[in-house]
Amino acid sequence: MFVFNLTRILPSIPKHISCRTMVQGTRLKYPRLGEPVDVMEIEDFSTPESLKPNEVLVQMLISPINPADINTVQGVYPIKKDLPAVPGNEGVGKVIKIGSEVSSLSVNDHVLPSRAALGLWCTHLVEPEEDWVKIPSDLPLEHAATLAVNPCTAYRMLEDFVELEPEKDWIIQNGSNSAVGQAVIQLAKLKGVHTINIIRNRPYLEEMKSHLQTLGADMVVTEEEARSLDLRSLGIPAPKLSFNCVAGRSGLDMFRMMAKKGVLVIYGGMSKQPLSVPVGPLIFKDITVRGFWISQWNKDHCMEQRQTMLEELIKLIRTGKFQHPELELYPLSEFKEALRRASFYDNSGGNEKRETKVAFDFRN
Amino acid sequence: MFVFNLTRILPSIPKHISCRTMVQGTRLKYPRLGEPVDVMEIEDFSTPESLKPNEVLVQMLISPINPADINTVQGVYPIKKDLPAVPGNEGVGKVIKIGSEVSSLSVNDHVLPSRAALGLWCTHLVEPEEDWVKIPSDLPLEHAATLAVNPCTAYRMLEDFVELEPEKDWIIQNGSNSAVGQAVIQLAKLKGVHTINIIRNRPYLEEMKSHLQTLGADMVVTEEEARSLDLRSLGIPAPKLSFNCVAGRSGLDMFRMMAKKGVLVIYGGMSKQPLSVPVGPLIFKDITVRGFWISQWNKDHCMEQRQTMLEELIKLIRTGKFQHPELELYPLSEFKEALRRASFYDNSGGNEKRETKVAFDFRN
Repeated sequence: MFVFNLTRILPSIPKHISCRTMVQGTRLKYPRLGEPVDVMEIEDFSTPESLKPNEVLVQMLISPINPADINTVQGVYPIKKDLPAVPGNEGVGKVIKIGSEVSSLSVNDHVLPSRAALGLWCTHLVEPEEDWVKIPSDLPLEHAATLAVNPCTAYRMLEDFVELEPEKDWIIQNGSNSAVGQAVIQLAKLKGVHTINIIRNRPYLEEMKSHLQTLGADMVVTEEEARSLDLRSLGIPAPKLSFNCVAGRSGLDMFRMMAKKGVLVIYGGMSKQPLSVPVGPLIFKDITVRGFWISQWNKDHCMEQRQTMLEELIKLIRTGKFQHPELELYPLSEFKEALRRASFYDNSGGNEKRETKVAFDFRN
Repeated sequence: MFVFNLTRILPSIPKHISCRTMVQGTRLKYPRLGEPVDVMEIEDFSTPESLKPNEVLVQMLISPINPADINTVQGVYPIKKDLPAVPGNEGVGKVIKIGSEVSSLSVNDHVLPSRAALGLWCTHLVEPEEDWVKIPSDLPLEHAATLAVNPCTAYRMLEDFVELEPEKDWIIQNGSNSAVGQAVIQLAKLKGVHTINIIRNRPYLEEMKSHLQTLGADMVVTEEEARSLDLRSLGIPAPKLSFNCVAGRSGLDMFRMMAKKGVLVIYGGMSKQPLSVPVGPLIFKDITVRGFWISQWNKDHCMEQRQTMLEELIKLIRTGKFQHPELELYPLSEFKEALRRASFYDNSGGNEKRETKVAFDFRN
């Protein structure tokens, strides 16, 4: 069997590739549910010798560690995979081989997963054509790798719940330094909508406030400061829309400040506590509490609608109007360190100058 | 001044009425906020000597004590009145005199208040024509007096949030023995919608269960029984709609049982605790939490829409398909005993065979 080493020509892709497409890859897997640092293992594997007509072989380039990945491995996420499984919901890859009937993708195309739980913490994977969305291959990889979940979550939450009037309306959010929070600040600013951003008290508080203001935040306050915030005295209209990724009692101040008939959207539960909802505002201010999950939105909408959103975000990235969160890149071999660094629920970036996102980098 | 005593001809209406319409009445008032039994006072008063052209003099017949009345006097309800004030949001009265330009009402018409906080715990009151809604004067007074708030709340909650399929869909509620709960059971049954009804454990539990089943409840369970209720194993589809008047942690089992994209409607907070909402169902089952307040609905909708609803309910009453909650009637002079009996938040009818409603009876 004739074998040639593609790495000479394409140094960032497969080290070993045969004419029959078999690739020696490396991936993380969890044979049982538990804390990722405890249960995760690294393994070498081979992709199948040949592709089915509709299949595509993708080499992963960058894949972030998101809270959803941690929760999936812990077994507390609604996506349950047969074990052992490879985690990883988000990331960018490059097509290195396509099946005989694949029409929408070509070799060298950059792709994002089109559905949740593909299992992207691996150097290579084979999936059907329809599991991938093509994106421009000149998009900076840090942007591409972090585009599908957090910016899209922020985008949809700003678009789908309340009609916001530019230059007039304010929104309020907590966990504002999270990747979604930062995306919300930037996208709201671009819409002309003002943001009140609640963060936890922390060392480097002023640096964090200043970072979020640089992104476009109109107001950044700690949870303590939010407690006595009197919007009326500041001449700020009551927000019609609020985003909550903390839950527990964190929503109480947002409920207090919200406008009649406002909508509070929950997209995370960092506190691990049920959301406390004061009954008065629900009934007498007719506040609505909704959840949002981008994976469900993707399931419920057609590819064209998703493409429209991605194109709009990509345009903002290209024109320098949208920044990705800071990434800390780790090779797959240092997965334990990466997972510890990304242990969202113990630390939540509370001691950082700004929120960084941990990601696996498969490029060398 | 010529005075004749109307009580001879109309024994159920004013004891003293002059040709200039001045009536000696009695009413309850609260000069300051506090617990109703502590702050409420009874006083004699005279209605104005003459009516303005658009005004109507109404003699009250029956007016119930509702949780909203108690909360208004306590100062924890969103309706704040200038003090001293007369409480009472609900009741039926009879028109005994009309102003010169009143066109929609005549003497002897039976009327309900058309807005909240008219202050109906009084033998007589004068209000503009538009503050009243005419209802058929042959409607049993116990029905008329209890029609405007609880049955309308149940009616709207069943109509306005989720489309329910007759003979197929189930709903779930707590506080099912409350006046609204009993109305929900009956109206759902008439729609062909099945109900799971949660009540608190209590003495006379079997009597209460049996009473609610007589009204049309498909299933009645205690809070403890609800905890282990497995609808799937019973072949019951997950409810798309649930009603909660307790809040606190009482919604957790309802959230667990509810269908994807279901709606939980809060219309009360008997536990005085914020509602605990588990984050998972909100996000991953896309549950919506809404509040409902009939006073807001009345404000937001035109009189015709309200009339349509009342007419439909009145038709059900006339054909014997809708029962009012059992009433315990007290004369105004025994108001302290009535208020103690109706102290919803300490007792909630937990020791009763069935929920009774306390009401003032002004007819003698």
